[in-house]
Amino acid sequence: MDLDVIRELAITNDTKILLLVADGLGGLPHPDTGRSELEAANIPHLDRLADESMCGLTLPVGLGITPGSGPGHLSLFGYDPFKYTVGRGVLEALGIDFHLKPQDVAARGNFCTVDSEGRVTDRRAGRIPTEDCAELCADLSQIALRDVEIFVEPVREHRFLLVLRAEGLRDQLSDTDPQREGVVPPPVEALGPEAEATARLANRFVAQAAQRLNGRHPANMLLLRGFAKHPQMPAMGDICGFRAGAIAVYPMYRGLAKLVGMTVLPAGTTLQDELATLREHWHEFDFFFLHYKRTDSAGEDGDFEAKMAALEEVDAIIPELCDLEPDVLMVAGDHSTPAALRAHSWHPVPFLLRSRWAVPDRLSAFNERTCRGGSLGLFPATEVLPLAMAHARRLTKYGA
Amino acid sequence: MDLDVIRELAITNDTKILLLVADGLGGLPHPDTGRSELEAANIPHLDRLADESMCGLTLPVGLGITPGSGPGHLSLFGYDPFKYTVGRGVLEALGIDFHLKPQDVAARGNFCTVDSEGRVTDRRAGRIPTEDCAELCADLSQIALRDVEIFVEPVREHRFLLVLRAEGLRDQLSDTDPQREGVVPPPVEALGPEAEATARLANRFVAQAAQRLNGRHPANMLLLRGFAKHPQMPAMGDICGFRAGAIAVYPMYRGLAKLVGMTVLPAGTTLQDELATLREHWHEFDFFFLHYKRTDSAGEDGDFEAKMAALEEVDAIIPELCDLEPDVLMVAGDHSTPAALRAHSWHPVPFLLRSRWAVPDRLSAFNERTCRGGSLGLFPATEVLPLAMAHARRLTKYGA
Repeated sequence: MDLDVIRELAITNDTKILLLVADGLGGLPHPDTGRSELEAANIPHLDRLADESMCGLTLPVGLGITPGSGPGHLSLFGYDPFKYTVGRGVLEALGIDFHLKPQDVAARGNFCTVDSEGRVTDRRAGRIPTEDCAELCADLSQIALRDVEIFVEPVREHRFLLVLRAEGLRDQLSDTDPQREGVVPPPVEALGPEAEATARLANRFVAQAAQRLNGRHPANMLLLRGFAKHPQMPAMGDICGFRAGAIAVYPMYRGLAKLVGMTVLPAGTTLQDELATLREHWHEFDFFFLHYKRTDSAGEDGDFEAKMAALEEVDAIIPELCDLEPDVLMVAGDHSTPAALRAHSWHPVPFLLRSRWAVPDRLSAFNERTCRGGSLGLFPATEVLPLAMAHARRLTKYGA
Repeated sequence: MDLDVIRELAITNDTKILLLVADGLGGLPHPDTGRSELEAANIPHLDRLADESMCGLTLPVGLGITPGSGPGHLSLFGYDPFKYTVGRGVLEALGIDFHLKPQDVAARGNFCTVDSEGRVTDRRAGRIPTEDCAELCADLSQIALRDVEIFVEPVREHRFLLVLRAEGLRDQLSDTDPQREGVVPPPVEALGPEAEATARLANRFVAQAAQRLNGRHPANMLLLRGFAKHPQMPAMGDICGFRAGAIAVYPMYRGLAKLVGMTVLPAGTTLQDELATLREHWHEFDFFFLHYKRTDSAGEDGDFEAKMAALEEVDAIIPELCDLEPDVLMVAGDHSTPAALRAHSWHPVPFLLRSRWAVPDRLSAFNERTCRGGSLGLFPATEVLPLAMAHARRLTKYGA
């Protein structure tokens, strides 16, 4: 639903909405047993919720489209992932809690290896240790260019964040990462005349960085991609007329929540910490986004058992979430991360919504197979927000 | 489906389509029994139709969106409820059979109570009796302004209709109804420079009305909202190449049918009267819209038993509708009105379509739960029209 329509119809009351996002929730059948992670895990509380809730499968972006973390979450927050995009550079900044200013241009950087002709021989510089990355970043941070402040921040292994800070910078810039080996990295090109000054600046940075990296094999060069400025997004709280609080252990998810104007609460490091935060701030917000990461990490590791265990950890807190008596309780995922694929995937994601005003689907369990038969069927994740608001009685009638 | 596509593909033949709209058809489980109004009612004929028909749940506007009567019906008639909107003032005029001319601007009025400082203390003037409203309207009708004709028509209790008639009027005007008490009603403001003359006119009317109402506690002031002109909509008959007839007891639904160019037939006051009209005019039209109101009224009253009784009244005429042998018979609702909510709601609405060319879903009953499993699943109400035309063999092939 268009956010302008939601804005027009939103009314306030004292109901509470709780959205639990188990990152990468959906999975695929294990080749030996034919059962998915959700089917194999022991999740009695989620199964009981499926009995008491309205269920379905969310489509984060579209059939066949594998979402990154940005679009996966923005959809669940009601934002059309094609209209509201978060550049790679910005996502990288969010991921390390780097506070971007409106004038900043951020890019994702890779240290890489080039041969004597300057051709890329390893796009990831043999995945150098993170400590080496930090040392290189400290060195590159000393590059001084006129009229611009430069930040080079280590992320992990060969990955880093570059931020250029000055008034008037533009982000319509091409990548220097050729996405393949055997070629010389191209210069940054302006994708419009207004970005030419910024392109020159970025190329001056690259030239100086190349000098400093020269001879430091395997990280003797760098690649930049995803130049982006912090996007302007309407605040969820302004659209929906509620106070939205976010609880997430990982910075990237806190950053995504901040992008849509949520108040980010201190979350600690474990799910129990997150739960304690939720309890402590329960009376301060109308909408809570509670993020759990391990389901996704285990999937990306291809560790079926670890993903089962993560699902069981989520399951164990369900009774405590129910004890808070949210008017609308939802369990969702931003995308699927099947252990069998060791990656995000395009598969629709199990979803449930429990509310006094939702007719229970009486499903016997909560998983990919059962949710397909839920009353919501297969539906766009962007509809989660209007559904939540309707069941919290926070939307008035459309039209007379 | 886009109406232009339907227009392009429409062909004529001698088939007949009958759309029975039970207003507010969908419901919710009764808290004591867990059964909805449709599940609890004794509706053997509708249940048999569910066995013989293609079924599903219509989504009038979108997931989570509660439709007003305007959007709910326009969707069923095939009109995108976001593209074609009917202002509050126009709907109010339709509801009392006031014939708006193209140059008219209509507004919904409330008599209200203000204190000595002019602040609203009761937005509904204690819901004065309709007779008092009529008397006040007669008085306000005597207000004379240069270059404009004024109509002030009673609706019900504190509600009335204001119509300004003159060439060149615009409806981009703000409300004087502050939607809350304790504040002085703001003046009408032009929402664009071209509406300034109309705004001045409306404010002159308000000033004179305030003088006349002064001292007539509790109705000592008025509030205006939803200024609107009669919208221009393509006629359904032109799009579909058929003659469309409407049978509805309540003026608002006759008005909505008129908006989309249907011929409004005299309907009497009961469902039996409507049925008699249908029989009498059966050979004159290709498409019939038959509207039944009591399902909605009972739901709005929160009267579960009355809604059951209303559904049983609808059920009783099904054999007679079948006896007419329509090529396509559809039973639909413009929205749900669960007795449990005492209001329109966002819940999808049971739907069935019986035709020689529709494979029967063999559902055991006609209700929210069974229709969810019908072959149409959850689908936009705007698709009802193309489905009806297809099954009436009134749409030719798209593309070669």
